[in-house]
Amino acid sequence: MNQNDLQVFSQIESEVRSYYRGFPTVFTKAKGHKMWDEAGKEYIDFFSGAGALNYGHNDEKMKQKLIEYITDDGITHSLDMASSSKRTFLEKFNEVILKPRDLDYKIMFPGPTGTNTVESALKLARKVTGRTNVISFTNGFHGMTIGSLSVTGNSMKRKGAGIPLNHAVTMPYDNFVDEERDTLEYLETFLESSGSGVELPAAMILETVQGEGGLNTARMEWLQRVDKICKRFGILLIIDDVQAGVGRTGTFFSFEPAGIQPDIVCLSKSLSGYGLPFAITLFRPDLDIWSPGEHNGTFRGFNHAFTTATAALEYWEDEDFEKGIKERSQLVEEFLTSLTKQYPELEGTVMGRGLMIGIKSEKEGLSSDIAAEAFNRGLILETAGPNDEVFKLFPAINIDIEALKEGLVIIEESIKTLLKQPVSNSK
Amino acid sequence: MNQNDLQVFSQIESEVRSYYRGFPTVFTKAKGHKMWDEAGKEYIDFFSGAGALNYGHNDEKMKQKLIEYITDDGITHSLDMASSSKRTFLEKFNEVILKPRDLDYKIMFPGPTGTNTVESALKLARKVTGRTNVISFTNGFHGMTIGSLSVTGNSMKRKGAGIPLNHAVTMPYDNFVDEERDTLEYLETFLESSGSGVELPAAMILETVQGEGGLNTARMEWLQRVDKICKRFGILLIIDDVQAGVGRTGTFFSFEPAGIQPDIVCLSKSLSGYGLPFAITLFRPDLDIWSPGEHNGTFRGFNHAFTTATAALEYWEDEDFEKGIKERSQLVEEFLTSLTKQYPELEGTVMGRGLMIGIKSEKEGLSSDIAAEAFNRGLILETAGPNDEVFKLFPAINIDIEALKEGLVIIEESIKTLLKQPVSNSK
Amino acid sequence: MNQNDLQVFSQIESEVRSYYRGFPTVFTKAKGHKMWDEAGKEYIDFFSGAGALNYGHNDEKMKQKLIEYITDDGITHSLDMASSSKRTFLEKFNEVILKPRDLDYKIMFPGPTGTNTVESALKLARKVTGRTNVISFTNGFHGMTIGSLSVTGNSMKRKGAGIPLNHAVTMPYDNFVDEERDTLEYLETFLESSGSGVELPAAMILETVQGEGGLNTARMEWLQRVDKICKRFGILLIIDDVQAGVGRTGTFFSFEPAGIQPDIVCLSKSLSGYGLPFAITLFRPDLDIWSPGEHNGTFRGFNHAFTTATAALEYWEDEDFEKGIKERSQLVEEFLTSLTKQYPELEGTVMGRGLMIGIKSEKEGLSSDIAAEAFNRGLILETAGPNDEVFKLFPAINIDIEALKEGLVIIEESIKTLLKQPVSNSK
Amino acid sequence: MNQNDLQVFSQIESEVRSYYRGFPTVFTKAKGHKMWDEAGKEYIDFFSGAGALNYGHNDEKMKQKLIEYITDDGITHSLDMASSSKRTFLEKFNEVILKPRDLDYKIMFPGPTGTNTVESALKLARKVTGRTNVISFTNGFHGMTIGSLSVTGNSMKRKGAGIPLNHAVTMPYDNFVDEERDTLEYLETFLESSGSGVELPAAMILETVQGEGGLNTARMEWLQRVDKICKRFGILLIIDDVQAGVGRTGTFFSFEPAGIQPDIVCLSKSLSGYGLPFAITLFRPDLDIWSPGEHNGTFRGFNHAFTTATAALEYWEDEDFEKGIKERSQLVEEFLTSLTKQYPELEGTVMGRGLMIGIKSEKEGLSSDIAAEAFNRGLILETAGPNDEVFKLFPAINIDIEALKEGLVIIEESIKTLLKQPVSNSK
Repeated sequence: MNQNDLQVFSQIESEVRSYYRGFPTVFTKAKGHKMWDEAGKEYIDFFSGAGALNYGHNDEKMKQKLIEYITDDGITHSLDMASSSKRTFLEKFNEVILKPRDLDYKIMFPGPTGTNTVESALKLARKVTGRTNVISFTNGFHGMTIGSLSVTGNSMKRKGAGIPLNHAVTMPYDNFVDEERDTLEYLETFLESSGSGVELPAAMILETVQGEGGLNTARMEWLQRVDKICKRFGILLIIDDVQAGVGRTGTFFSFEPAGIQPDIVCLSKSLSGYGLPFAITLFRPDLDIWSPGEHNGTFRGFNHAFTTATAALEYWEDEDFEKGIKERSQLVEEFLTSLTKQYPELEGTVMGRGLMIGIKSEKEGLSSDIAAEAFNRGLILETAGPNDEVFKLFPAINIDIEALKEGLVIIEESIKTLLKQPVSNSK
Repeated sequence: MNQNDLQVFSQIESEVRSYYRGFPTVFTKAKGHKMWDEAGKEYIDFFSGAGALNYGHNDEKMKQKLIEYITDDGITHSLDMASSSKRTFLEKFNEVILKPRDLDYKIMFPGPTGTNTVESALKLARKVTGRTNVISFTNGFHGMTIGSLSVTGNSMKRKGAGIPLNHAVTMPYDNFVDEERDTLEYLETFLESSGSGVELPAAMILETVQGEGGLNTARMEWLQRVDKICKRFGILLIIDDVQAGVGRTGTFFSFEPAGIQPDIVCLSKSLSGYGLPFAITLFRPDLDIWSPGEHNGTFRGFNHAFTTATAALEYWEDEDFEKGIKERSQLVEEFLTSLTKQYPELEGTVMGRGLMIGIKSEKEGLSSDIAAEAFNRGLILETAGPNDEVFKLFPAINIDIEALKEGLVIIEESIKTLLKQPVSNSK
Repeated sequence: MNQNDLQVFSQIESEVRSYYRGFPTVFTKAKGHKMWDEAGKEYIDFFSGAGALNYGHNDEKMKQKLIEYITDDGITHSLDMASSSKRTFLEKFNEVILKPRDLDYKIMFPGPTGTNTVESALKLARKVTGRTNVISFTNGFHGMTIGSLSVTGNSMKRKGAGIPLNHAVTMPYDNFVDEERDTLEYLETFLESSGSGVELPAAMILETVQGEGGLNTARMEWLQRVDKICKRFGILLIIDDVQAGVGRTGTFFSFEPAGIQPDIVCLSKSLSGYGLPFAITLFRPDLDIWSPGEHNGTFRGFNHAFTTATAALEYWEDEDFEKGIKERSQLVEEFLTSLTKQYPELEGTVMGRGLMIGIKSEKEGLSSDIAAEAFNRGLILETAGPNDEVFKLFPAINIDIEALKEGLVIIEESIKTLLKQPVSNSK
Repeated sequence: MNQNDLQVFSQIESEVRSYYRGFPTVFTKAKGHKMWDEAGKEYIDFFSGAGALNYGHNDEKMKQKLIEYITDDGITHSLDMASSSKRTFLEKFNEVILKPRDLDYKIMFPGPTGTNTVESALKLARKVTGRTNVISFTNGFHGMTIGSLSVTGNSMKRKGAGIPLNHAVTMPYDNFVDEERDTLEYLETFLESSGSGVELPAAMILETVQGEGGLNTARMEWLQRVDKICKRFGILLIIDDVQAGVGRTGTFFSFEPAGIQPDIVCLSKSLSGYGLPFAITLFRPDLDIWSPGEHNGTFRGFNHAFTTATAALEYWEDEDFEKGIKERSQLVEEFLTSLTKQYPELEGTVMGRGLMIGIKSEKEGLSSDIAAEAFNRGLILETAGPNDEVFKLFPAINIDIEALKEGLVIIEESIKTLLKQPVSNSK
């Protein structure tokens, strides 16, 4: 590819750009699990827009609905006025997702991004309880605006705030210190003791699998105990399902296997199905004490997203859909497990759950090298964790099985190549 | 219209919805200055998505580009990777907007909403200066996430935070106390005095016309003096042009007539031209000290928006475009001025600048009543100000002149009708 | 004096020591208005321990009571248990001070220093109102612990906190910008406007004369209007009378001439009469909603201070006592006024009220030079103001008239000497 | 005793008074381990002013020095000017305390109370490191002003602040969860992880025995590991020895047996020896980067306290003095241990170290009942812990052995009496 093609970015775009550096090419088209760059090179996508493209790129059914909507001059932007496409989405979401799961939630449109839904959840929890503090967990990631950043663990991101981040207390996530230590006994002691310096919080906020934090996974028993502790102390439980939700772990909501019903749920990323900016906040009806307009935003009523999101929900009407995710998950998990055994030099551990899965390598820099090598071989693969120590497989949850296997082969080839040569000190 | 049609919203959607209450109908289609509801009723739009639809609804040229892009399976969601449609936007924005105005700015994609760009601006200013405080102005509005809310004046919105909002000092906006009092002399004394309790701030953030705050308008001399004070003390000047930018006041940036070059500029709302979620942050190249990924977000790379935004910039290549806005502004201003004279019972003052204009009525509730009456007569009109005391005209900046006049007639008819009957105590 | 005598301090004591630098000698004894150093040199004291020795040093009557108490093994330290000397103080203070002034206050012992009483006042105001913010005023000084520092204006002191100081909003003190500008109209507009970004505060805290801030003096009408504004908005008025109280301005409380009854009053410094650490917080009985021990401290029950404080109150039983202060005040004020006229090169303005009075010189460094020269001539004189631009006369309020005049002569001699030579750039 | 005698307090003094409630009588005189009330009743004092009277009441040697100093009109109040009694104290403290323990510290006079020294320590640590956060420990107690309160664990006291307390992170003290759990491994993992949400702190602050928190005692190995962790991460270690210092645990500083040299040490309470308000802050000379006056206060130069403190240090020149404390400690510890065995109904555990010792009873209300019963029998005894579950023996460290035994007998008698009757539900 011509170097000049990237020059515009380095000249005009801010240095803050980041994925650009790991995938140094100019993309043009995409379909399903495939992406193409300007030079016509084809890539298999195991990244899925960091979880925003769970159904793959430019899904044909959604595409037709979207083109039809636009062609008909359907209203595009309607703030929080009522529109017919919004009503259709509300009804469909209620019918297809909430009711079958016995979830009784009000739906809020807090603005179209993950951090918007998190900020709205924190506000609501504080308003309902009249308390200010929120308990977050080590390596949690919830967004880049000041409210969400306050409950985010990553120190580099936090420092970017430029101000001290307060009203949040970090507690150890499942397995934070080591596998034997029971982190919830610790947390519970803090809440019980009137001398702990930790005020009763408004809420706890957590991801069931930590997407940015390194695919750390909470056990179902741990989630159930968190739920119990919250109920015991009258603390609201917020599940941030922005990355782990919408099927990524095998079920629509990532917390379904735990059998819990969080007080507040945050959804975004893959919600629109087509990669369009869209987010909602769900909460128990009795928590809906908002004043009109108390939280607002210009892009709460983006009807293109309502349209594709409604189309995307059709997948969930098919009982076999979840099975397909599980089949793919199993295939990937087995592959990764065998990789760690076959290549002990990887010093690898399989992390994650469902199709939110990867390998954490103890070898400094190796995971980044694997992602770079895979890119050269036509596979888009991201790293995660505080030191990029995990390489992460995020294929579309309905990816063609053959394509999936092709991608896995590229990973193995990349590893083989790298293990033959000394690990670079890149990164 | 059938009441049942709105029932879904009141049953499933959160009570936080707000415009829904002023415009109680279900919208379906829109084109240019027109909107239609389910019953087929047609409305003239003088609201323009609170400034997100400056070019009107579903502009035909942008629509064709967008349909073409989608049909071709152009990449939709690319995070902050490079894409060809992003590059085209960067080049076009630089050529059409920045260069002709002698502005040398780096462009950052901070996430697709107004509050994202404001949060990124505040972070950058704090990082560059190493200071924590930011000076904001009375009645300023900058967004609903905690960072932006900290610099927002409205007490109801602030209370919604549920936590004390810090690291911000509010100073009086132009004409805050009354017209004689010089608010900047006051501000400058605070900065000069080492005993004032106000630390040297990282930045000042302001809107040149306050969209939500009641169409308060800063004089050009005031803006120039703010700029000088910032330079004198080494404070960064952030202009939040989210609502007043993209032609709303007559020029692309609202600060152009003042001849100043802010250190940081926030743009969103009408930037995509088509009502799609999109925002950028502009800043002097020497301020671009971000680390890669220090501020990020899932929807920074929404290629539909790049596509329509590029198409929208073509309007600005035509020298007559600004003239057209000015012509419409003058027409509206003259109309409003004559209204205040013809109907002294309005107790009205014309507020605002360009097509960001309205009347502030001292009669409690009257502005809201006018908006409600206009809605019944088929005109969409919003109120603004801490007590909704202003009714606000935000027609498309390229609205058909005849349609504009039609809308003005509806306003006058609404006023006439209301002044005949006692003012209700609605609101 | 032998340089070695000071060496111990520079070797062992922290660099934070400060008065030591302006008065570089080792003091041993003191009586009334006189102090002596190790070399036997005698000084007239126009400093009075920064207002902690309003009755002069080692007052003979108090001394006898104190020696008697100690000799009898009266209990010294009793925390907040009941002791007979504490009861006597409570009764006497109530009889001699509160009742004759129609003040109905509860008395709290918050710890023995000025900052203890201020911190307790702020806590109580926040508890009573359930609000967090407090309005303080430019150039106010209230103490060095974080709560008090948050409401203190001086930027060097504030920076010493090492953390951002929040929950306080600084408003302009009387005459802050210039004499014409009405600072309270400004403050009132901020409180009235729901878009000002300033939440309704729990309290306003102020000094009627700013001791550290440069002897800025609030007019009685200004105080009365502040009181009215507080009442109008349900804000508690805290008068910090730590430095201006106990007769310094001519009456026991400095706010008496304004005829107001603050909700909370802070007293310390000269309260014990003998320079012993002692402070009380006074407040309206209906505000006394403290839980037992909610604010505590080891040295709340220092019976030596109760003993001397009780003795000191006897001065106030004599009707002529206040007259004596006024006579001295008048003498000093006339002297200073004539100085400014006689020596225009001083570029001096008389600042302050009562025996809290001085001259602000526009000549950089001159006030400090005058204090240094006076010290050499045997007069202890302090400077104040953000740039030490004021030299400040704080003689004992019952100082011998002849001694007072002697001190004034030294000041004039010092000025004469300095005006003959070019002003140094010291300090 | 006449009820009227206490009436003055309930009428005029604030409800915040607290010890008054546990010891409802009016004290008049005190000597050594004895106190007398107005009715002439004699009490043995096992409370020692909450640790402010380690040498007993009104020590005869100190008393004579103090009377002499006052009689001679020695300067009483000298702010931070140099005085001969201050110099003598500095030299003596250096010779008798610091040098023999190989401690090289600068001495700061931060104001006369415990909270003053803690606030100065926190400020200095933040200034030196440029960081804002401080790690404190569960059940720690450091004072009532906002800075100190932020690092205090007790929830009732914290709530009294009326504002959120920030810039502090609470970590588990030794044995917080249970005896097996290693609280420092937890702490260290938090500091190591860049995803923990806990920024690198300026300092850790702790008490080696928690006086208010319930006599929780850190093991020497735990202190040594804390010291190592601080050194590893460049965190300053602040030991708050306000209550545990000055011999209370058997050595002058409570941390001596651990062999560590904290970066900053806070001393107050018994430092003056006579119960006079007095505090100092000690720190490594290279940390002494204060600007003159950056932290100040009116009562930093209280010469009565310098005088008695100097006299008190003479005790420490006698090698047998520490032995005497140990002898008494052993006697008390053995007594308490045997009590817990002899009276299993107590459900008691011996807590604390040295003469900072007591019994924690699992029976709700019993410890308070024991203190109340002992008071009736003429023994002053305090409770501690978040629920007053510990009764605490704080006799003078040089108490007459016979008096000590007499007090112990009263305790045993009180327990016997109470165990015969059903435990009340008082408190």
